[in-house]
Amino acid sequence: MNSSTNQKLEIQKVESSRIAEVDFNNLTFGSAFTDHMFECDYKDGEWQNPTIKPYGPLTISPAAKVFHYGQAVFEGMKAFKDDNGKVWLFRPEQNYLRINKSSVRLAIPEFPRDVFFEALTTLVKLDKEWVKPGQGNSLYIRPFVIATQVGVSASPSSEYKFMILMSPAQAYYTGDVKVVIADHYSRSANGGVGAAKAAGNYGAQFFPTNLAREKGFQQVIWTDASKHEYLEEAGTMNVFFRVNDTLLTAPISDRILDGVTRKSVIALAKNDNIAVEERPVSVAEIVEAAKNGSLKEIFGAGTAAVISPVSAFSYQETIYELEKQEDGFATRFKKELMDIQYNRSEDPFGWRYEVV
Amino acid sequence: MNSSTNQKLEIQKVESSRIAEVDFNNLTFGSAFTDHMFECDYKDGEWQNPTIKPYGPLTISPAAKVFHYGQAVFEGMKAFKDDNGKVWLFRPEQNYLRINKSSVRLAIPEFPRDVFFEALTTLVKLDKEWVKPGQGNSLYIRPFVIATQVGVSASPSSEYKFMILMSPAQAYYTGDVKVVIADHYSRSANGGVGAAKAAGNYGAQFFPTNLAREKGFQQVIWTDASKHEYLEEAGTMNVFFRVNDTLLTAPISDRILDGVTRKSVIALAKNDNIAVEERPVSVAEIVEAAKNGSLKEIFGAGTAAVISPVSAFSYQETIYELEKQEDGFATRFKKELMDIQYNRSEDPFGWRYEVV
Repeated sequence: MNSSTNQKLEIQKVESSRIAEVDFNNLTFGSAFTDHMFECDYKDGEWQNPTIKPYGPLTISPAAKVFHYGQAVFEGMKAFKDDNGKVWLFRPEQNYLRINKSSVRLAIPEFPRDVFFEALTTLVKLDKEWVKPGQGNSLYIRPFVIATQVGVSASPSSEYKFMILMSPAQAYYTGDVKVVIADHYSRSANGGVGAAKAAGNYGAQFFPTNLAREKGFQQVIWTDASKHEYLEEAGTMNVFFRVNDTLLTAPISDRILDGVTRKSVIALAKNDNIAVEERPVSVAEIVEAAKNGSLKEIFGAGTAAVISPVSAFSYQETIYELEKQEDGFATRFKKELMDIQYNRSEDPFGWRYEVV
Repeated sequence: MNSSTNQKLEIQKVESSRIAEVDFNNLTFGSAFTDHMFECDYKDGEWQNPTIKPYGPLTISPAAKVFHYGQAVFEGMKAFKDDNGKVWLFRPEQNYLRINKSSVRLAIPEFPRDVFFEALTTLVKLDKEWVKPGQGNSLYIRPFVIATQVGVSASPSSEYKFMILMSPAQAYYTGDVKVVIADHYSRSANGGVGAAKAAGNYGAQFFPTNLAREKGFQQVIWTDASKHEYLEEAGTMNVFFRVNDTLLTAPISDRILDGVTRKSVIALAKNDNIAVEERPVSVAEIVEAAKNGSLKEIFGAGTAAVISPVSAFSYQETIYELEKQEDGFATRFKKELMDIQYNRSEDPFGWRYEVV
């Protein structure tokens, strides 16, 4: 863990808020940003000068290493406002631990815990009017780190910038999600960076996802790069399969993101006495289960959409439709998760984190 | 290919050159930049307003997609000054074709050929004083594309910036290059982006390369991610193995960069009647050849270092030393390549491209 010489958080407030300019009933995910952002630079071996300042553009060299070598990692997390106006984060410790895990894999120095939590809570408090109450409304929070050293030699940067941006979000209605099971392109390799929330993992998926979209599918479920025999994740979501009443999901590995929603679903399922198997799930068994009717549900689990039920999947040009389950596992876990997130139920796992 | 509405190249010259501030005898690779740079934006479905302007910082949103999703590709190429003061590029068509191939894989719109060549040659002409004559001196040229749309939703950007930076370079003396053959970490997957010069491919290698450096090795030779049985590339160089008098190198695939220096070495070897085998090269056969003395040379081939002879490799904790070859293939190809690059020999392949 790297220390920081000057850890006193400086706060530069906006002169006037932009909140009145934002139409909270017509938000496009991740495109509007709150009044303030957090910035902290790594230089001379230390994280320095943590600062909250008005959201605005960066001045950065075109030779900064992030542009050339993708040395960048990020997190996605949310704050929720309950009916009494209190604001809560959901399992922020998980995001803190994971961004540092991602940083280690990308040769980026870890960020100090106390600075992360002070910045995060101060920022949410400052911009708490941007968190709207009501089901589905939230504040999407994006911590990220970029390599800022000037120079185009392919080696780790000596300078970095850690930032937090915040964006108000509405219910993320994904519609009817249809997915393609990958049989040619891949997301990650054994021994690669798939388990890290590395920036490059996402850009690499855009082209094969575009190919799927052209055929009417919204997402790709990635499979192992060696033989495309085992189901992995959907790129922005982990994936669960319900066969009869058992929940199946791929185990965490160096190819798969250790999703916070994923592990929360597993905890909820176990608490509800639902059988959960974290093991390699083969394409063949899911195709077979779809054919014999034992495949009841597929759903994605991720911070942005919480739970996304999948209505159909395509594998090698054959489309398998799933019957809509009004009271299925997806509906159940989504409700249980959101009730905890919005402080409408008990929190037996200690997942809520009160900010203000 | 995307067209461009406003293709007239605008040129904004510096008021005074910074060249006198640069110590050309003590250049660190990729850290000093010439007076001018090129910039062209993609917006509303078209590449617009190609501009050469003074080298300087960008003003860019912290929510630009390049920072979050690594949607970015680049090229590396060089200009050389001959003893008569003429400046030459080496096979620029290859870099043009490859950056567009990389862009397609990263869901980035292709860049128009005429704008690329006009920008490149105009920029080199403007800053031709930065290209120093003499063996080993060159101008390293870095075209790159970054996603600039504001927004943290994980989808392809609708806006991009294509840029060219130029950096004066001296002979890239890598010293005694010792390499580790990967048996745990990986660079790329089948169906992944390994064949693209995608930014994220490079940041992903920094951590395992650091581990190698801590043990006294400078680079990693990557192997296939499935079983680590076959040798692929070194991350910033393709790799050649000379067994007796035959040259072996991995075939191009979706995991391996189609290197310009690689293909130039193969052409030179064939022209010299040296047997070349582009085929999967197993770790086992190279270890066996090292043991029985038939492994004569290993060398890397890439734009920055041209040819880098490898003096030793480590595989599963055993170190195999290679005898120094004063008149080996590495020395021979490096001389042949540089003689063409500096206009000191005939150019039977038509690789030189005169700029000014």
